Amino acid sequence: MSVTTPRGFRAAGVAAGLKASGADVALVVNDGPDAGVAGVFTSNRVKAAPVLWTQQVVQGGVVRAVVLNSGGANACTGPAGFQDTHATAEHTAAALTSVSPRLILGAGEVAVCSTGLIGERLPMPKLLPGVRSAIRGLSRDGGPAAAEAIMTTDTRPKTTVARGSGWTVGGMAKGAGMLAPGMATMLCVLTTDAVAGPATLDDALRAATRVTFDRVDSDGCMSTNDTVLLLSSGASGIEPTPAELVAAVTAACHDLAQQLVADAEGATKQIAIDVVGAADEDDAVEVGRTVARNNLVKTALFGNDPNWGRILAAVGTTAAAFQPDGVDVAVNGVWVCRGGAAAEDRSKVDLTGRDVTIRIDLHAGTSAATIWTNDLSHAYVHENSAYSS
Amino acid sequence: MSVTTPRGFRAAGVAAGLKASGADVALVVNDGPDAGVAGVFTSNRVKAAPVLWTQQVVQGGVVRAVVLNSGGANACTGPAGFQDTHATAEHTAAALTSVSPRLILGAGEVAVCSTGLIGERLPMPKLLPGVRSAIRGLSRDGGPAAAEAIMTTDTRPKTTVARGSGWTVGGMAKGAGMLAPGMATMLCVLTTDAVAGPATLDDALRAATRVTFDRVDSDGCMSTNDTVLLLSSGASGIEPTPAELVAAVTAACHDLAQQLVADAEGATKQIAIDVVGAADEDDAVEVGRTVARNNLVKTALFGNDPNWGRILAAVGTTAAAFQPDGVDVAVNGVWVCRGGAAAEDRSKVDLTGRDVTIRIDLHAGTSAATIWTNDLSHAYVHENSAYSS
Repeated sequence: MSVTTPRGFRAAGVAAGLKASGADVALVVNDGPDAGVAGVFTSNRVKAAPVLWTQQVVQGGVVRAVVLNSGGANACTGPAGFQDTHATAEHTAAALTSVSPRLILGAGEVAVCSTGLIGERLPMPKLLPGVRSAIRGLSRDGGPAAAEAIMTTDTRPKTTVARGSGWTVGGMAKGAGMLAPGMATMLCVLTTDAVAGPATLDDALRAATRVTFDRVDSDGCMSTNDTVLLLSSGASGIEPTPAELVAAVTAACHDLAQQLVADAEGATKQIAIDVVGAADEDDAVEVGRTVARNNLVKTALFGNDPNWGRILAAVGTTAAAFQPDGVDVAVNGVWVCRGGAAAEDRSKVDLTGRDVTIRIDLHAGTSAATIWTNDLSHAYVHENSAYSS
Repeated sequence: MSVTTPRGFRAAGVAAGLKASGADVALVVNDGPDAGVAGVFTSNRVKAAPVLWTQQVVQGGVVRAVVLNSGGANACTGPAGFQDTHATAEHTAAALTSVSPRLILGAGEVAVCSTGLIGERLPMPKLLPGVRSAIRGLSRDGGPAAAEAIMTTDTRPKTTVARGSGWTVGGMAKGAGMLAPGMATMLCVLTTDAVAGPATLDDALRAATRVTFDRVDSDGCMSTNDTVLLLSSGASGIEPTPAELVAAVTAACHDLAQQLVADAEGATKQIAIDVVGAADEDDAVEVGRTVARNNLVKTALFGNDPNWGRILAAVGTTAAAFQPDGVDVAVNGVWVCRGGAAAEDRSKVDLTGRDVTIRIDLHAGTSAATIWTNDLSHAYVHENSAYSS
């Protein structure tokens, strides 16, 4: 149920003192025989140093190790911050090579991911010994420890597995705030023992993230550090079809994405916005995302208020194809709005549970998409007004 | 200091029982000799019935009365809701004509504005008697009473005056939430005794709103009911130059816009985001608006936290021209970020006051714009999760 479930991977998670308490450095090592990699990254133009570094590493097509830290994003840290990332990769490569002579690797085969506060340098005198400690701790069942070490405001670690025929996909993720489009704010490492080259991995990863992580919009805020990596060891000796790989990677991403929404900062509701009857998928995504980002909709749901008028007002700000008097809205199965006006009695809507489904029928076509989001609560405000202090 | 400061206007505000307490029906009458009008309206595609009605009325170029109600938006109410608006205009026209024979007017010269909860029909048996009561109460000093009657979650009425040479512009506005682009969520009536035809009024109003109300973005949520009307009576007999009129109308709109931001729902901070060094004005507005809408920036400021990393992360999601390592950010005058990285000590930033200025220098050109916004507080969440219940 983690990155070490597929054969060919070891992992570890250790406490290096980057955070006040708990583990904060994770390492995932691919023992091969293959070392394939694909990655998707934040579309934020302000990218953290580890994102800039790892994008280059992934282009090389070979990754044998991923070192991750919580306790600092290493974003907006200038050239010195980039040097820190580079030094981390070099240190990891050298230390791994010295203890695992089978693994002869250079810094260019080490991906680096960081998460935490933006704008502060990482404490390298703590991080580098942490990397050495993680190398000593590497094991075939180290996946859960690695998943714990990448947590920030997450209340629980997030791991997954999806099984193929004789091969598996494992994964871990972190992320509880700054969860938004173009990639939820998150780090995610997926592993597979399937045989698959970089191009196949890349196709599978992009197909999966497009309909999973990219459709999580917890708070509309896009991070500087989002990174999703997919590593292949080929240790199963089995080469699935591209479609089989897409299905398994999508299942793993979907499961992790749902865990992110379930654990979003301060949220009391986990909300699925199903947009149907759209002219095309882009319209459906735009409408879903716009409703997901509307603070008045989010606060209403926090207050157990099926305020469909606010939903319609949000839909009205989009460029999607629809007629204002042709939109239906259901909240938890009750069609409170038909044809753009009040329909079933809103008092029939039961919003006492944690799960909420908003269904919006645009009556403009046959396309659909679901966006997952959260409510806006007192606890969100509290957590995010106190985070850096 | 209100819509009745310019000569030629009478107004009233009365309680018709649309709200649980307080005045809720306002009337502004233009006694002429002119009856010029211009209007700007929400760009939301889901428009309330009174917006659809008043857009048509304004196209006619003549408005002799504006009837406004709080206690219900008459939005998403279908054809029946539109009939209610039409009946309100007809009733107002007939009743005004019967008591003021000088004022012979048809329904097509009566603008209607509504504000309150979306999705519910207005109680016409209360509203129409309220209109008659307002007609009986019309007076040359009724402006302040009218400003009170249009309040919803506003904690205080908002009025203004701007003086020309021998002529004035007066105004009133309401709006405390759903304040966002394309028009803050608001109703606003401006009056002037200057001599100015519809085309001149329209030019002046659009020039003014573009740099005032359109640059208020309190919570990123755009209303279905936003309406700004400018009425001219010509009673001063003085025809200002177009530039003089633009200046006075802009001053009035600016003052009212600042009052809206000052009274935004649950806000503890009034925030000016000055974007400078932009390649063009659109870039400056896009950057300012994106930062203004970022919940992580808004919650940080609520917590007195000069978290410039979140500001940079928000800037990075825009398409504006800038280099990530070329952006400077000051919070209340302290340049906490230079060249995309930490600069002056953030502990120097004093955020204890209500007013906050964020200055973002993109170093990409010479254009600038200011967006006004608020923080995201516990009180905002509370007020908006309890509003309709």
